[in-house]
Amino acid sequence: MILEMFDKFKEIQKKQKAYGYVMGIVGWDSNTEAPRDAFEHRAEMMGIISSEMFKLSTSKDYQEAVYSCYDSIDELDNLQQREIRKAKKNLDKILKVPEDVFVEYRKTLTLAQRTWEEAKHENDFDAFAPALDNIIQQNKKILEFIGYKDIPYNELLDDFEEGYTEKDYDEFFETLKRDLVPFVKEVLTNGRKIREDFISDIYPRGKQKEFVEYLMNVLNFNYERGGLKESVHPFTWHTHSKDVRFTVRYLEDFVFSSIFAGIHELGHALYEQQIDPKLDYTNLGGGTSSGIHESQSRFYENIIGRSDEFWKVHYPKLKELFPEQLKTVTLEEFVLGINRVEASFVRVEADELTYPLHILMRYEIEKDLFGNRLETKDLPKVWNEKMVEYLGIEPKDFAEGVLQDVHWSAGLFGYFPTYALGSAYAAQFYYTMKKELNFEQLILDNNIQAINEWLKEKIHQFGSSKTPKELLKEVTNEDFNPQYYVKYLKEKYTKLYL
Amino acid sequence: MILEMFDKFKEIQKKQKAYGYVMGIVGWDSNTEAPRDAFEHRAEMMGIISSEMFKLSTSKDYQEAVYSCYDSIDELDNLQQREIRKAKKNLDKILKVPEDVFVEYRKTLTLAQRTWEEAKHENDFDAFAPALDNIIQQNKKILEFIGYKDIPYNELLDDFEEGYTEKDYDEFFETLKRDLVPFVKEVLTNGRKIREDFISDIYPRGKQKEFVEYLMNVLNFNYERGGLKESVHPFTWHTHSKDVRFTVRYLEDFVFSSIFAGIHELGHALYEQQIDPKLDYTNLGGGTSSGIHESQSRFYENIIGRSDEFWKVHYPKLKELFPEQLKTVTLEEFVLGINRVEASFVRVEADELTYPLHILMRYEIEKDLFGNRLETKDLPKVWNEKMVEYLGIEPKDFAEGVLQDVHWSAGLFGYFPTYALGSAYAAQFYYTMKKELNFEQLILDNNIQAINEWLKEKIHQFGSSKTPKELLKEVTNEDFNPQYYVKYLKEKYTKLYL
Repeated sequence: MILEMFDKFKEIQKKQKAYGYVMGIVGWDSNTEAPRDAFEHRAEMMGIISSEMFKLSTSKDYQEAVYSCYDSIDELDNLQQREIRKAKKNLDKILKVPEDVFVEYRKTLTLAQRTWEEAKHENDFDAFAPALDNIIQQNKKILEFIGYKDIPYNELLDDFEEGYTEKDYDEFFETLKRDLVPFVKEVLTNGRKIREDFISDIYPRGKQKEFVEYLMNVLNFNYERGGLKESVHPFTWHTHSKDVRFTVRYLEDFVFSSIFAGIHELGHALYEQQIDPKLDYTNLGGGTSSGIHESQSRFYENIIGRSDEFWKVHYPKLKELFPEQLKTVTLEEFVLGINRVEASFVRVEADELTYPLHILMRYEIEKDLFGNRLETKDLPKVWNEKMVEYLGIEPKDFAEGVLQDVHWSAGLFGYFPTYALGSAYAAQFYYTMKKELNFEQLILDNNIQAINEWLKEKIHQFGSSKTPKELLKEVTNEDFNPQYYVKYLKEKYTKLYL
Repeated sequence: MILEMFDKFKEIQKKQKAYGYVMGIVGWDSNTEAPRDAFEHRAEMMGIISSEMFKLSTSKDYQEAVYSCYDSIDELDNLQQREIRKAKKNLDKILKVPEDVFVEYRKTLTLAQRTWEEAKHENDFDAFAPALDNIIQQNKKILEFIGYKDIPYNELLDDFEEGYTEKDYDEFFETLKRDLVPFVKEVLTNGRKIREDFISDIYPRGKQKEFVEYLMNVLNFNYERGGLKESVHPFTWHTHSKDVRFTVRYLEDFVFSSIFAGIHELGHALYEQQIDPKLDYTNLGGGTSSGIHESQSRFYENIIGRSDEFWKVHYPKLKELFPEQLKTVTLEEFVLGINRVEASFVRVEADELTYPLHILMRYEIEKDLFGNRLETKDLPKVWNEKMVEYLGIEPKDFAEGVLQDVHWSAGLFGYFPTYALGSAYAAQFYYTMKKELNFEQLILDNNIQAINEWLKEKIHQFGSSKTPKELLKEVTNEDFNPQYYVKYLKEKYTKLYL
């Protein structure tokens, strides 16, 4: 009986996967090459497909399959149990929220997207405030339907990082405030001056492309299971472990963008490519959480990609491609350049050291918004105060301040904190890896594959079949510990700057 | 009542369109960039989506809607009537063929594709013969279920060119045999020798790309409604009038390939882009037939693109991009080069003048196969005899002979004749256009837009809402008349070669 029901569950899941697959491909297409005027027709067609998907995912048959399996869950094997638990969790959520509330919220988000774009362009917070407030209020309403552990914000945090609550994040960010903020101030104030002229030189597009393709080979991206394209905002995308693609962009006056955003996305992509293909046929394929995903992208981007050792090997190739631009730039100057630290307004342009402080302030703001301690209208004031407190600078306008990120206009609350958490995970993984591998030497030997293999064996292969907390514990033999992150940053930037 | 039923028909049709849309995008993706290892998963996912589409298109609801509307068709307006007639015709066909016969046939085709590829690669006709024979026999069986007018082959011909029968094509090809074959022999034997050295020179890819993009602007391709990409086999693809894309390929040792295959595909693409967008929401969007489609691609490729006038305007640009390769090549030599005539084995590489003879022999073979006058095993012998008869050369092997085309392995019978028919349509349109427009002068003035507008007004806008025969009659004021084609070719090649 239970196996019959589980088969039924798998059968419906396969259909869901088929809808998910085509929506995924259409999404990739629309973000990378679909012509502008196709927008309207596509929106209409995809509305129909999503609604078929929704019908399927809330059908009586599906409910029966999921809940029957859940009732006899002990009869299933471990992986099956995880599948059913995850399916039930999602189904509960969908069923708890009345359809009209959900439809209303989707509509609000669609409109808010454009409102935010215009408001940012016009540098006008008041134009966006009502829409933002509307999103927040509807979110709170939905959270009342769904339910939450202790406080509403916990539910949002759990959405992106299973098992993490405000209490967990409070500990993490308190550590950063106490141990990192003073160090960042020290580097910003007393750090040595570095050479910057070559950073904003002109690096022709074609040669940048050649270098990025060179890097993809160095890092062992598998082209049989993926591809590389261009788009305005770099991103990684997958439908299953054998189709993982990502994009970069080439800015002629900022070569670091294609190099480091490229390596960053590659980190996301390698994670997806190295997941066990058998999980493609479950709901446990794909990376397990935003934080773990970000740990991988930042591991490749910062820990490998901005290391001294990495450029000892690959700087000659870059110089070969850009002999004029880099003629007088020494390896040491170059490595300092790619690790330049500065207090800046915009999160996505922030360096590795100041980045977590941008996240810290967003976390504090979200927490207060959902704890009813902060009103939408007061956001700009609070934003600027925190910028001054943590980074010592005050934004001149909203576009570089509170309006800079797309996330809130898309209803993404609870997502930001995973960015900093990911970097901290990466550091913890790094110190474990160093015990087992001769990390620096592998990079010097241009043997990144050995690092890829380690990450595959310890993390990637499991997809979503382990939670972030389980992974941390199993890989590093301890629970999440932000001190590794502080240690990593202090070691690295003391050596470079102090 | 009828309007209620028609609304129901439109509602189901919209869902069909949504499935068609996503399958279209996935198809484009798989043909232009999806990674190799994604094949298996995609095939499985698309199997599910097609089967949903099939269920919808044979559902009782859909049958009821279509047949009820058909029963009271006089109450509908003209466009609605055409929609219902077309829907009924397709539905009749699907319902007449037992599902297992259809499934078996799809399976046969899937396997045959690979068998053909291998057989061609191994130059082994016997390896492909059983699969081909199987396809032909199953096709005949299906035709018995569907029914046909007089003879089975008529049904296949009508599939690609509505209203055309073997009798129509016989007249057409008899004309070519009588009036064109001797002329081609004359040109091949007594035509003047032309300069050929520059044709196979090396033309770097990047510059070819630049020239193709230049041509797309000259010919007014609308990038807001489409795009251009690369693939091994150039093709055009659309989901609706606002999303029409095509591909080219760049062969460094054969620059004519990107130029003329590019203009050819652009002709297909302009047709689709200029269809009235209101037809996107009917089953009458898209070009009306293979023959009319081919008439447009060949009009742009040959009548515009290989004309003296066109290169008077654009040869300087080409010389600017390839100064070394074309340094000593005069405009006259270049125009002769792009219109080089030679007896060759492979259809897709054939020139404008010998091309219809390649089609003629395929038509005669298909006709005899479906008329039970020719057995599969005798194909190579007959093939080579006809090559000698029409072109005076005999293929050395199967790969350049009977195994060269993909069509039969894909079950496409009745398709080939439309290629020649399209060229003949193009000539008939051309002589009408010349009465209304100063064609040569427009090209000299680089005003292709005026030609595009004429084709839009007379042909493109109607999509499939008129049959090929209706279009011919309305545009040219007479029925299809192959003498225009003969006249066009004789005028052009007499001037160039004799």
